[in-house]
Amino acid sequence: MHTLTVFQRHGFQAVTDLDQISDLLMQPRTLIWLDLEQPTASEIERLRAEFGFHPLALEDALQEHERPKIETYPGYYLIIFYSVGYNASERSLQFLPITLFVGANYLVSIRSGPVRHVQQTLARWQTNSHVPGYQVSSVLYALIDAIVDDYFVVLDQIGEQIDEVEEAIFQRGRQEVASEIFTLKKDLLLFRRIVAPERDILNVLLRQEVRIFQPRELAYVRDVYDHLVRLTESIDLYRDLLSSALDSYLSLQGNQLNQLVKVLTLWSIILMACSLVAGIYGMNFVFMPELEQPWGYPFALGLMLTIAVGLGIYFKRSNWW
Amino acid sequence: MHTLTVFQRHGFQAVTDLDQISDLLMQPRTLIWLDLEQPTASEIERLRAEFGFHPLALEDALQEHERPKIETYPGYYLIIFYSVGYNASERSLQFLPITLFVGANYLVSIRSGPVRHVQQTLARWQTNSHVPGYQVSSVLYALIDAIVDDYFVVLDQIGEQIDEVEEAIFQRGRQEVASEIFTLKKDLLLFRRIVAPERDILNVLLRQEVRIFQPRELAYVRDVYDHLVRLTESIDLYRDLLSSALDSYLSLQGNQLNQLVKVLTLWSIILMACSLVAGIYGMNFVFMPELEQPWGYPFALGLMLTIAVGLGIYFKRSNWW
Amino acid sequence: MHTLTVFQRHGFQAVTDLDQISDLLMQPRTLIWLDLEQPTASEIERLRAEFGFHPLALEDALQEHERPKIETYPGYYLIIFYSVGYNASERSLQFLPITLFVGANYLVSIRSGPVRHVQQTLARWQTNSHVPGYQVSSVLYALIDAIVDDYFVVLDQIGEQIDEVEEAIFQRGRQEVASEIFTLKKDLLLFRRIVAPERDILNVLLRQEVRIFQPRELAYVRDVYDHLVRLTESIDLYRDLLSSALDSYLSLQGNQLNQLVKVLTLWSIILMACSLVAGIYGMNFVFMPELEQPWGYPFALGLMLTIAVGLGIYFKRSNWW
Amino acid sequence: MHTLTVFQRHGFQAVTDLDQISDLLMQPRTLIWLDLEQPTASEIERLRAEFGFHPLALEDALQEHERPKIETYPGYYLIIFYSVGYNASERSLQFLPITLFVGANYLVSIRSGPVRHVQQTLARWQTNSHVPGYQVSSVLYALIDAIVDDYFVVLDQIGEQIDEVEEAIFQRGRQEVASEIFTLKKDLLLFRRIVAPERDILNVLLRQEVRIFQPRELAYVRDVYDHLVRLTESIDLYRDLLSSALDSYLSLQGNQLNQLVKVLTLWSIILMACSLVAGIYGMNFVFMPELEQPWGYPFALGLMLTIAVGLGIYFKRSNWW
Amino acid sequence: MHTLTVFQRHGFQAVTDLDQISDLLMQPRTLIWLDLEQPTASEIERLRAEFGFHPLALEDALQEHERPKIETYPGYYLIIFYSVGYNASERSLQFLPITLFVGANYLVSIRSGPVRHVQQTLARWQTNSHVPGYQVSSVLYALIDAIVDDYFVVLDQIGEQIDEVEEAIFQRGRQEVASEIFTLKKDLLLFRRIVAPERDILNVLLRQEVRIFQPRELAYVRDVYDHLVRLTESIDLYRDLLSSALDSYLSLQGNQLNQLVKVLTLWSIILMACSLVAGIYGMNFVFMPELEQPWGYPFALGLMLTIAVGLGIYFKRSNWW
Repeated sequence: MHTLTVFQRHGFQAVTDLDQISDLLMQPRTLIWLDLEQPTASEIERLRAEFGFHPLALEDALQEHERPKIETYPGYYLIIFYSVGYNASERSLQFLPITLFVGANYLVSIRSGPVRHVQQTLARWQTNSHVPGYQVSSVLYALIDAIVDDYFVVLDQIGEQIDEVEEAIFQRGRQEVASEIFTLKKDLLLFRRIVAPERDILNVLLRQEVRIFQPRELAYVRDVYDHLVRLTESIDLYRDLLSSALDSYLSLQGNQLNQLVKVLTLWSIILMACSLVAGIYGMNFVFMPELEQPWGYPFALGLMLTIAVGLGIYFKRSNWW
Repeated sequence: MHTLTVFQRHGFQAVTDLDQISDLLMQPRTLIWLDLEQPTASEIERLRAEFGFHPLALEDALQEHERPKIETYPGYYLIIFYSVGYNASERSLQFLPITLFVGANYLVSIRSGPVRHVQQTLARWQTNSHVPGYQVSSVLYALIDAIVDDYFVVLDQIGEQIDEVEEAIFQRGRQEVASEIFTLKKDLLLFRRIVAPERDILNVLLRQEVRIFQPRELAYVRDVYDHLVRLTESIDLYRDLLSSALDSYLSLQGNQLNQLVKVLTLWSIILMACSLVAGIYGMNFVFMPELEQPWGYPFALGLMLTIAVGLGIYFKRSNWW
Repeated sequence: MHTLTVFQRHGFQAVTDLDQISDLLMQPRTLIWLDLEQPTASEIERLRAEFGFHPLALEDALQEHERPKIETYPGYYLIIFYSVGYNASERSLQFLPITLFVGANYLVSIRSGPVRHVQQTLARWQTNSHVPGYQVSSVLYALIDAIVDDYFVVLDQIGEQIDEVEEAIFQRGRQEVASEIFTLKKDLLLFRRIVAPERDILNVLLRQEVRIFQPRELAYVRDVYDHLVRLTESIDLYRDLLSSALDSYLSLQGNQLNQLVKVLTLWSIILMACSLVAGIYGMNFVFMPELEQPWGYPFALGLMLTIAVGLGIYFKRSNWW
Repeated sequence: MHTLTVFQRHGFQAVTDLDQISDLLMQPRTLIWLDLEQPTASEIERLRAEFGFHPLALEDALQEHERPKIETYPGYYLIIFYSVGYNASERSLQFLPITLFVGANYLVSIRSGPVRHVQQTLARWQTNSHVPGYQVSSVLYALIDAIVDDYFVVLDQIGEQIDEVEEAIFQRGRQEVASEIFTLKKDLLLFRRIVAPERDILNVLLRQEVRIFQPRELAYVRDVYDHLVRLTESIDLYRDLLSSALDSYLSLQGNQLNQLVKVLTLWSIILMACSLVAGIYGMNFVFMPELEQPWGYPFALGLMLTIAVGLGIYFKRSNWW
Repeated sequence: MHTLTVFQRHGFQAVTDLDQISDLLMQPRTLIWLDLEQPTASEIERLRAEFGFHPLALEDALQEHERPKIETYPGYYLIIFYSVGYNASERSLQFLPITLFVGANYLVSIRSGPVRHVQQTLARWQTNSHVPGYQVSSVLYALIDAIVDDYFVVLDQIGEQIDEVEEAIFQRGRQEVASEIFTLKKDLLLFRRIVAPERDILNVLLRQEVRIFQPRELAYVRDVYDHLVRLTESIDLYRDLLSSALDSYLSLQGNQLNQLVKVLTLWSIILMACSLVAGIYGMNFVFMPELEQPWGYPFALGLMLTIAVGLGIYFKRSNWW
């Protein structure tokens, strides 16, 4: 499935035939955006024929990718960028790679599913097309900027999850806290593995080996670069916060354990001491003077009570209770 | 609600009508500071009309922001800076964003609540207006410097809280220490998320894409930049200290647990051993020679005492007690 | 065992005699790749004689090496690079060093075992030999790039192992988790010790002390450099993830311990309290009114039941259970 | 209290009247060092009048400071540097700020107590005054260098304390180890908060906005800068070592706990098992054949012994003991 | 004790009289290496007189040093470098400082004990003296390179110790693991404190304030610099590995503790429950129907057995065992 958008001197042209692309590219002041969703083999073949992409580049573009990357070819870039979404209920990140071929006057985007930013950027372009100097660089910038802006949304959603986990630790004492923290940490790691190499992509774009951006536009690119740097920093701060949360949780567990062992120790000692008294008066010696006395039984009970209360007071005083 | 302050060649002018701004901006040696608190829609419209701000910039200015930022527009900057306060009793930071439009000869500040630094800087300007070369750069610097100076106050307040928590750990053994440490760590994180991007803002100002500062003034800007760097470092040191405090707390908990288990172990063994003696002489065998002896009962008690004392001595010697 | 591949102006030449190398090197537009597997002493001697390698360089090349390195000699580089494989079942990395002598128009590779990348690169060269400007730099780049690309495969395999360990922690509660995490961490460390110095090797190549690469080819070298940088980052992220996993595991252990101690405490107290009742009515006092009553026995049993149930309810209410 | 030292073309001049300073500053080849300890209001007023210091600078100089800093004024620097001492018995750092005004041909030092380095540097100056080119830069360098050299002494003292704590962990098992480690960590933090910004001060001096140093002297300044960098690194290494020490301590605590629980478990089981035997033969059933047998009592005792020894052997075999 | 080696235009000269040094230094194409082991006061005096070393430099050279350093004097460097050895059985590092005075055509080495590298470098020089351009820089480089190469040997020895400790953790469960890990961590710290400042020394040499190295030789110096950087990285990786090892050890301790507490809990509950049964039938109530029955005794024993087996099965099912 493909969408072909062609802008020329005076406005957008209605061109649907991919075979015309190579001719259009020759004409001055033309800008082409070809967007492909799950391209067919014949569409790929058209790409090769019309744009003259290197077979290796096309192969690269169609492969499953694990990481963002940029490759510089003579006259164009191959960029693999990621759109990222967050499913808060499952605490999982969704990644959708977008492959871009970026030349001086064209942009080819290939994706395996719908990417909101592509539609939005296309709409925005059609609205702003009258702006003089609206070129491939503007479209590319707009697309990348929109994608990166959404990263902040994702990060904020993760941030909210972190807030929740943190509350869970200190207020409700939930048990699964450890695994939740781990899941969030992993999300942050996966996110970072997208963001960090994209920083490098922008760095390559800034190097201008293929001249896409006007000098005055480089500031915008640097801006996106700065956003990615800031995202990386924020991700690292969150990872740090999660580590702190886990440490605090461990310390709370320690408190709880100490409390439990205190209770165990105190009651064990009291009950064992009383049992010892009972055991003593349960011995079968013939000569045990107390046994015959009428006050023997109440005395034994009183002795137990005294021991229990005495130990209770002693532990209290030792600041144990 | 707005305050319009206009300085011209010979002093401050009494101008209240926002519609005159565009005319005033044309005149040489004019400096305008328009301060808006919770601006109305019509005031915003005036901004657009008089200063010619880009609609996107204005939209950005009125949105809720989560992070400081700077955007470069032709002829002016849009800066979002944060005033930070600390509520020591609740251990919470208060953030108040200030949106600034900074042009060659004007400054527009927009805020949603009162910001002490704005009033102070305004007053300071009016006092120093006779200084030759007092320009928008001086006002901007004074404002940002005042805000950043207050960060040190906030950091010192957090530092005092950290001192308190630390004492709580080693002297009073308070239980909620873990959650207090976590709260402080989070405060530091949030603080850092303000300070770190502001560092970037100053970096952009230093790049001088819009010429606001005279070359000789750049040293002042670099100074504020250095302050922000130092703040970031101090925040990181404090975070490290809090981690150490939590580690120490865990180790103290471990000590306490070991102590508890020692007590439990020692007394369990002593009491159980004595109970075993009592249990033995409580058996109902017909032929138990000791039972008939008159010395049987005292012998049993003595045996228990011997065991108890013996174990006590043994544990003492094993360096247990 | 050696393979000699000679390319001249018009194509590959069938040359097998090592003694001709020095003559071939004199001729223009000649490119030689000599590949040696476990070279014999006489082959080494040929290297010295034909290429004029420094004895120290040859000595270095034949030694066992622990780390990648590069040495610059007049007119050629000595590079020791590592091919890395991963044995998932034993969770161990395999390292195979490849020693390269790289001059302006020759490449000598020495290895102690079969290295897939060498064969592949050789095949690729023979396929692309018609490409103008296919030189030693292209061959070197292709070889190094292939080796480094495989590092990503290894890293992904380790990543899968990490996923498995992580599942083991939260789902199956396997015991050996600690040692598995440690093994993976160590693998990452050993891997990093290969990757990090290879980054330096590429840095040296970029410095161009011996002119191997054309200026336009430096971008490719920088690309491999970037890959190595990214690998190092990913390795560090994985190490961090493993640390988090271990922390989570510790916290789960803590949960388990608390649970155990709760059970112990609760049942100890209940059983001891009941035993105390039994012990009391097992005392041999002559005057114990309850003993004679027909309701005595059921009363005692009821008392025990009451205590057990009462404590159960109490602990339940205290949110213990 | 002040000391005025004036050097002119031919040697030191006996000048005591502060009012002459402004005249002296006009004369060529004059070098003035004015040292003030707890200056009076009138002395401060003299500073303003004679040197023409900015009121804000003077205000800054007299305030309590929490951190080293440097401010650049037209023609002079305001530097706040710290002399640091260590009280080993209390494990506490002493900080004494020294405020310096440094101009092209004068140095003003203000301090609230005696600072050994000031006296020493003054003496050293008077000894070396014949050296041509002995200028304010030499004096400033000598002073700062002496202060920074003492930091190494302080660091070594802290290092010795760390050695002691470490021994305490592994040999004597002292209890207060956690709080001692924390105190040392805090000392290092406070120390770092002095050293790190002083590094920045030297950086500012190196920027030479006010020309104090001759180009050839910059190497010396860079030297002090390097010392401060190295100090920071050493401080960080020590902090790391303390963290390791605490971790080791936690692990030792864990060992101890395991040992305790082993003892508890083993003896509990043995004693409870024997008690059960005793309890069984203490039951009051009419038909218990063993009870009537003459071998009953020794049999019961033997059974207990067998159980105890059997469990002992079993635990031994399970590698528990 | 001193060794004087003098090389002139045509070869090594037999000069033993230190007083000739100043004359020799005047002659072109002369290279002097004076090696001193525990120099006497008169030898030091000769140094001052013949080479014209600054008294402060000589004082510095004879002092006990704690850290490597470099001082730049007019025309020569004072370098303090460290030879490092490792005693594997005691797990301790041995440090031996070597003080070097390096001028354009001389090298003075002072040491307090035998340093193998000095002899080796001297021998190597005498072998290579015919190489044109063999100068002080070559000798200095050879010496420093030899020393630094040995650092790798030391690091590998420490690495082996780490392997051993790691095995001890997972296979033999040795107790002293915590202190061994700490010792190794400390060794790495001390080692790092030597390596890191030496990196700075090479940096200073690269700055070429005193021209010792030819431009083409700087690559060698950078090489040693790279080695030191790599050493620092490896040291940090090892420190990280040791931390991981300790964490794993803590986790294994936790496993062990959980196991112990499980055993304790299970057997306590079983034995206490059985004891309760025995206690109940040991009560002295007159009316206890079971007591009179002939099946009473076996019933009681059966009840105990049932409880024990039932609890065993229950715990088994609860996945506890």
